[in-house]
Amino acid sequence: MTIVMDTNNVENQAIEAKKAARKLSALSNEEKNEALEILAKELENNYEVILEANKVDLKNGEAQGFDSALMDRLALTKDRIYDFANGLREVALLEDPTGKINTSWVLDNGLKVEQVTVPLGVIGMIYEARPNVTVDATGLALKSGNAIVLKGGSNAISSNQKIVQVMHSALEKTKIPKEAVQFIASTDREATKQLFTMKEHIDVLIPRGGASLINAVVNNATVPVLETGVGNCHLYIDEKADVNKAMSILINAKTDRPAVCNAAETLLVHRSWFNSNKETLAKTLQDHEIKVFGDETVVKTLAGAVQATEKDWAEEYLNLSIAIRVVESVDQAVDHIDRYGTKHSEAIITEDAQAAKTFMSQVDAAAIYHNASTRFTDGGALGFGAEIGISTQKLHARGPMGLPALTTIKYLMSGNGQIR
Amino acid sequence: MTIVMDTNNVENQAIEAKKAARKLSALSNEEKNEALEILAKELENNYEVILEANKVDLKNGEAQGFDSALMDRLALTKDRIYDFANGLREVALLEDPTGKINTSWVLDNGLKVEQVTVPLGVIGMIYEARPNVTVDATGLALKSGNAIVLKGGSNAISSNQKIVQVMHSALEKTKIPKEAVQFIASTDREATKQLFTMKEHIDVLIPRGGASLINAVVNNATVPVLETGVGNCHLYIDEKADVNKAMSILINAKTDRPAVCNAAETLLVHRSWFNSNKETLAKTLQDHEIKVFGDETVVKTLAGAVQATEKDWAEEYLNLSIAIRVVESVDQAVDHIDRYGTKHSEAIITEDAQAAKTFMSQVDAAAIYHNASTRFTDGGALGFGAEIGISTQKLHARGPMGLPALTTIKYLMSGNGQIR
Repeated sequence: MTIVMDTNNVENQAIEAKKAARKLSALSNEEKNEALEILAKELENNYEVILEANKVDLKNGEAQGFDSALMDRLALTKDRIYDFANGLREVALLEDPTGKINTSWVLDNGLKVEQVTVPLGVIGMIYEARPNVTVDATGLALKSGNAIVLKGGSNAISSNQKIVQVMHSALEKTKIPKEAVQFIASTDREATKQLFTMKEHIDVLIPRGGASLINAVVNNATVPVLETGVGNCHLYIDEKADVNKAMSILINAKTDRPAVCNAAETLLVHRSWFNSNKETLAKTLQDHEIKVFGDETVVKTLAGAVQATEKDWAEEYLNLSIAIRVVESVDQAVDHIDRYGTKHSEAIITEDAQAAKTFMSQVDAAAIYHNASTRFTDGGALGFGAEIGISTQKLHARGPMGLPALTTIKYLMSGNGQIR
Repeated sequence: MTIVMDTNNVENQAIEAKKAARKLSALSNEEKNEALEILAKELENNYEVILEANKVDLKNGEAQGFDSALMDRLALTKDRIYDFANGLREVALLEDPTGKINTSWVLDNGLKVEQVTVPLGVIGMIYEARPNVTVDATGLALKSGNAIVLKGGSNAISSNQKIVQVMHSALEKTKIPKEAVQFIASTDREATKQLFTMKEHIDVLIPRGGASLINAVVNNATVPVLETGVGNCHLYIDEKADVNKAMSILINAKTDRPAVCNAAETLLVHRSWFNSNKETLAKTLQDHEIKVFGDETVVKTLAGAVQATEKDWAEEYLNLSIAIRVVESVDQAVDHIDRYGTKHSEAIITEDAQAAKTFMSQVDAAAIYHNASTRFTDGGALGFGAEIGISTQKLHARGPMGLPALTTIKYLMSGNGQIR
């Protein structure tokens, strides 16, 4: 693997990827699966050199004073590398999303029309610290017949580079051209920016990471973007909510994994339910050491609650804090979500079927829950197999994105001289 | 209707549209269809005032020295207005694309998951001279439960404004809030630019018009774009092409309606076919007064052919000109299309099934034809009913876009306290 030092090479890499994509799209499911198995085996066989490379990133991270969460995301172990390999094997077991005839018909003039699924072409993956994305995204891209251009974070550059080197050697033993996997080794920001506008060579950009990375891509890219991730998720406890369900779902949605995108960030509570159940709510929050930022009523009622600001309603905490607002009706809850939600996952707790129906039809989000935790918005939990991310946009793919999100369609028309 | 003079109002209009979209999404198919019938009737009843308003645009057009094609696109007649009304009635007859359960399943824990189709929300339509788009796009948006913000070209401002005024009065007699149809009356370019970045209020932008309009939207918008239109379409006559089919398809694809996006712009010809059939080809082109820009071989062989430049390969003529290149193989034809095509419609003429298969699998375009004219890439011709445009992008919708392209999905999860 050549280390790329100037941005002209980024364009060359994208062109190489596009050429490889054409070859890759002609391979059979079996050929792609064989390649994934070889990739898996070679990652396992080379775990030691990958761990060596990982040490460089960890040392840099320490020197830069990264916090323990970031260090943990960066750190590789033999087990983690074997998990990457098994992830590739799981992807191989999934159905090939390409080459399917969705629908076909014959026009009156005899022209036969088929709508078939095909790979998108070249995927540009822009992501932050976790080196697992390098393997996971490559596996999903190759399985769906797509080439991939990887631009990982500078914190994991040494690990990512070694992983790609191992994968390139492995690909030489397969039918997949190794040019189908491109790694932008430059840590120059200009290199990332170049990816934003390479419409000729890259078919879609997928950013994976924090809000600022995602916004940078969305705001600057002319290449179409599959927006993922930010989840400012709400739980609405309705007037007729069952107390036990409400408390169990609140605790699960807030505390199970507070740093993930499908965790709850704001609790909206109907005033009459709040008045009847404030002691239970207060005790539950206290027992789980949840820090509360609330509106006026909440601050007056719940001991230790701090006055919420606009930022509390608008942003994810990703920790054990929650914003709480008392509302007068399901409509007011929907209005609040309309204003502050990120269209990810929203839940209503109620025994009132009509209120549930209103909430589910009026809230604009990828996933809307009645009497269940927002934590189920996840490709694995929903049975999609591996996921490339959770889309918070409305075009192309919404919610957890499995392999079909990495395909598009073609219309194939077969005739014998038809003209219009 | 208020005439909007400053760009702050553009944001207010988008906010109004978003509010209206929520109400609109709750209406039944019957309620939407009744509204479309009332819109149709009111356009017919008010054709005279619309024609009056149209005169203003025609007078301005004359003063500015518009060519006859543009004047024709601008001009309204009673018949044309009645056609708009009937277009709305046809849209009413189409199946409602929203509220469909695409798929549903139950997780092991009893959580029920439904994937349902819902409106996108607010559509921003940015278009050029033709006033029919004002009615057509509104009809498709309302039928699919979407609000619409219309930004038409300044050439048709008076006609568009009157049409919207008539539609607003008509909507007052329906269940659809009139705020669901917003018209940006400002001809200030800043107003259009504001639409590009209103991600909070507008869910998708659809540009309809020439390449420069489409590029301006694609290059500047942070709102997701459904890219439509530019078709630099190729016809490839293979070594084993039937001469009669080839000539009849060439003439149809080039001359039937040269100004539309599915017309052929470049002819690629296999050298051996070219050598055997150059007289027939020359005569056919001459008989139909097609001006030829060709490569070296073509210029040497076909009388009157002019040397093609890069621009000839890269751009649409939209008139009776064609670029012709002699190629050595189907692979070279695919390479040429890969370099210059706009991923719209591409055709191969051949009796060789293997060559057809290679071409159809390797060419990256929305519609690929074997022994048929590219002119069939059209919602009407393919039986989709009305179309909002022809997508040349790969995400969300590709090829002719009917009503389903104006929808997205939601996952609705119903539980009884499930946590993860």
